[in-house]
Amino acid sequence: MLDQAVLQHLQGNRDRQLEKLFELLSIAGIASRNDGQCQRAAQWLADYLQQELGFQARIAETQGQPNVLGECIKSDDAPTVLIYGHYDVQPPDPLELWDTGPFEPAIRNGYIYARGANDDKGQLFAHLMAIKSWQQAGGGLPVNVKVFFEGEEEIGSPNLEPFVAAHAKDLSADAALVSDSAFFAKDVPSITYALRGLVYIELTLRGPSRDVHSGQYGGAVANPLNALARIISQMHDDSGRVTIPGFYDDVNDLTQQELDSWQKLPFNENAFASELGLHALAGGEDGYSALERLWARPTLDCNGIIGGYTAPGPKTVIPSTALAKISMRLVPSQNPEHIVRQIEEFLSRHTPSGMQAELSVMTKARPVLLQTDSPAMSAAKAAYAEGFGQEPALIRCGASVPVTELIQRLLGIDAVLMGFGLPDDRLHSPNERFALDQLYGGAIASAAFMQNFAGRQ
Amino acid sequence: MLDQAVLQHLQGNRDRQLEKLFELLSIAGIASRNDGQCQRAAQWLADYLQQELGFQARIAETQGQPNVLGECIKSDDAPTVLIYGHYDVQPPDPLELWDTGPFEPAIRNGYIYARGANDDKGQLFAHLMAIKSWQQAGGGLPVNVKVFFEGEEEIGSPNLEPFVAAHAKDLSADAALVSDSAFFAKDVPSITYALRGLVYIELTLRGPSRDVHSGQYGGAVANPLNALARIISQMHDDSGRVTIPGFYDDVNDLTQQELDSWQKLPFNENAFASELGLHALAGGEDGYSALERLWARPTLDCNGIIGGYTAPGPKTVIPSTALAKISMRLVPSQNPEHIVRQIEEFLSRHTPSGMQAELSVMTKARPVLLQTDSPAMSAAKAAYAEGFGQEPALIRCGASVPVTELIQRLLGIDAVLMGFGLPDDRLHSPNERFALDQLYGGAIASAAFMQNFAGRQ
Repeated sequence: MLDQAVLQHLQGNRDRQLEKLFELLSIAGIASRNDGQCQRAAQWLADYLQQELGFQARIAETQGQPNVLGECIKSDDAPTVLIYGHYDVQPPDPLELWDTGPFEPAIRNGYIYARGANDDKGQLFAHLMAIKSWQQAGGGLPVNVKVFFEGEEEIGSPNLEPFVAAHAKDLSADAALVSDSAFFAKDVPSITYALRGLVYIELTLRGPSRDVHSGQYGGAVANPLNALARIISQMHDDSGRVTIPGFYDDVNDLTQQELDSWQKLPFNENAFASELGLHALAGGEDGYSALERLWARPTLDCNGIIGGYTAPGPKTVIPSTALAKISMRLVPSQNPEHIVRQIEEFLSRHTPSGMQAELSVMTKARPVLLQTDSPAMSAAKAAYAEGFGQEPALIRCGASVPVTELIQRLLGIDAVLMGFGLPDDRLHSPNERFALDQLYGGAIASAAFMQNFAGRQ
Repeated sequence: MLDQAVLQHLQGNRDRQLEKLFELLSIAGIASRNDGQCQRAAQWLADYLQQELGFQARIAETQGQPNVLGECIKSDDAPTVLIYGHYDVQPPDPLELWDTGPFEPAIRNGYIYARGANDDKGQLFAHLMAIKSWQQAGGGLPVNVKVFFEGEEEIGSPNLEPFVAAHAKDLSADAALVSDSAFFAKDVPSITYALRGLVYIELTLRGPSRDVHSGQYGGAVANPLNALARIISQMHDDSGRVTIPGFYDDVNDLTQQELDSWQKLPFNENAFASELGLHALAGGEDGYSALERLWARPTLDCNGIIGGYTAPGPKTVIPSTALAKISMRLVPSQNPEHIVRQIEEFLSRHTPSGMQAELSVMTKARPVLLQTDSPAMSAAKAAYAEGFGQEPALIRCGASVPVTELIQRLLGIDAVLMGFGLPDDRLHSPNERFALDQLYGGAIASAAFMQNFAGRQ
């Protein structure tokens, strides 16, 4: 049972804690923008750790946006917990679809609405609430705590691997908590034990040296937009399978045990579809269930295409260039380096005459499969029971949290993915939100984890 | 021989005439923008016709941008020439590629640089120069002259057909001149006797009701961008042939005589390609020469695609919608209405599950094939000899000038396409230009046509 003084402090100080979270949510730190806002968010966190939580904290620069490191070491004998979160957020576009400003946090119907309300400021803040209550009401933290808040997660963590490698000592711990995932459903508390990896590329096709008139040149000059559409189309066959040679080479089959356990989850394909205004789920490969396609099969999705004339009205132009942003979600044991080589090979074969292809690789992140029977996992399961009233389901997630694989590979720790979000929190979309109940439950679960892990180590 | 007083007036008043043309070029009348600039350009022309050329002139409203009508009737016995031009211009984007402002006309190396310098303000102004000199130095016009300046040519003339039908009496004439085409090459004066038609559509695909995270949903949700690429790709086969059923049903074969006459034209495929920075011409259908593909074969080109995240950096989103602008150039005797029906049918078959397709038809213009042995054509051939020192070649053009077909069908006149542009004038592109020699030669040719046509009728 969680220390009652800590629990009461958590329950009695919600307004004050929420006020601080809103300060953080109002800072528009978007990693792809060099407008100083990431620096501001990082500084806010470092200040908060030092001034309100009694941590030693500092901003640690990278070649891109800065990270925040902090620690509160109780004693060399106590186990150490590393808490990871990211303070950067997705761009808020399209702005006109937000009911309230993305950086003007608002509460409606029990939800906090803001860009980053869930992903990931709200989730990381649940841990800061737990720390605060231990410090104020529990006689101090029951474990040593280190925190690591990243500033470039939403652009694929381009500087994370060298950073973790260079700061392995600062980050060393006995367990790591990563809260950047979600419940399987409302009232189905969940811990995620596998994540997909990611390769994100930008493909530019170049044709004529300038935009030309489609009447004067059409029929003689190869059109970069037509060619781009053709190349993208050639990346899938009619059954939805990715046609890049070797793409599926390293995909692991699922065990029957895993498939059986997923059968027990309350997944309703029709409800999932209709929440998106769809009659049926039509993505991915034929012959696999929706959960398999989401969790255990790789994908290839265009995330953006632009080229030619895109303003209102007609313009009869053959553009000089066309650009596509394309990402692939990878599953164990696919290797991003191998996939990039296969794409390069694919493009060299499929770029048509009269066209030049330029490939820029923006993100490479490996897929992750975590242990489900570690001491940290046991502590987490019991902590969920306290925070949310029941033991968690064990699930996979189709998204990527690159730090998880790095913690495993470079620090030698299996992270525990204690996610507090709900599936309909609209991550990366307009009107992103985070339920107050999830925030408060998450803070209790975090506090309980610290107590449980102190006892179990 | 052109009246020498008229010729001398044309040659002696170039600076004053150019000054007026520059006034017109500096008005940014873009038909798709409702910013009053088209109104300004139309007013400028009406004022110029009345105040400087002694015409009766008026602005004639349409449901879109206004047209300008003017006339100077010398006598009921004289033949009447209708001169068509359009004052609206293409949008100037991308602005950063212009060496001088698109609406700040500048002269460099014998060329006028401005949006519309050639297409079509410069070309229509050649006729106004001829009129001015006949009025000032030739004792008045040798023929009755009517002018019709359109304001929506660059958006596909959506209101032109009802306008011409409703104003058939105002526009009635014995011959029509349309100057919105080009020489085959510098020093190869040319009259165009065939134009391609145009169908321009906007295709929107709608998938999930909101943008979603490509990790959390990728594999289960059909992606509108992937689907759009697939549909566009399916519109051509591997040989570059358009696969829309019935697309080629009404395409006329060329006569051997036409093919032979094109052989004599100074066309260098390598030079054409290298002017665009290309090693080879790779557009269109296999098995046809470049001139056939440009002039006598229909095409299907994407003119714009936009969807998803297109700003710098990665964003892992599956967008809710994707949009393509697609145009088809038609050749005699393809019918735009028939083609639109075939596309609708094609889309109903090829729109994948989980996706809704919306088709908006923005332009329908028929292809044109004109008589090459009319009295007006004879007058024009002799006029070219005066303006440019040699008889013109007879050529086709791959672009569309919708008014030509309407003049033929609704007014019962075959227009003569006296084009004064050069092929490398960069129509619709940054740094559009018009050679001063072409402007001055065109003005002489126009003046000579009036004299020739007065004598021949």
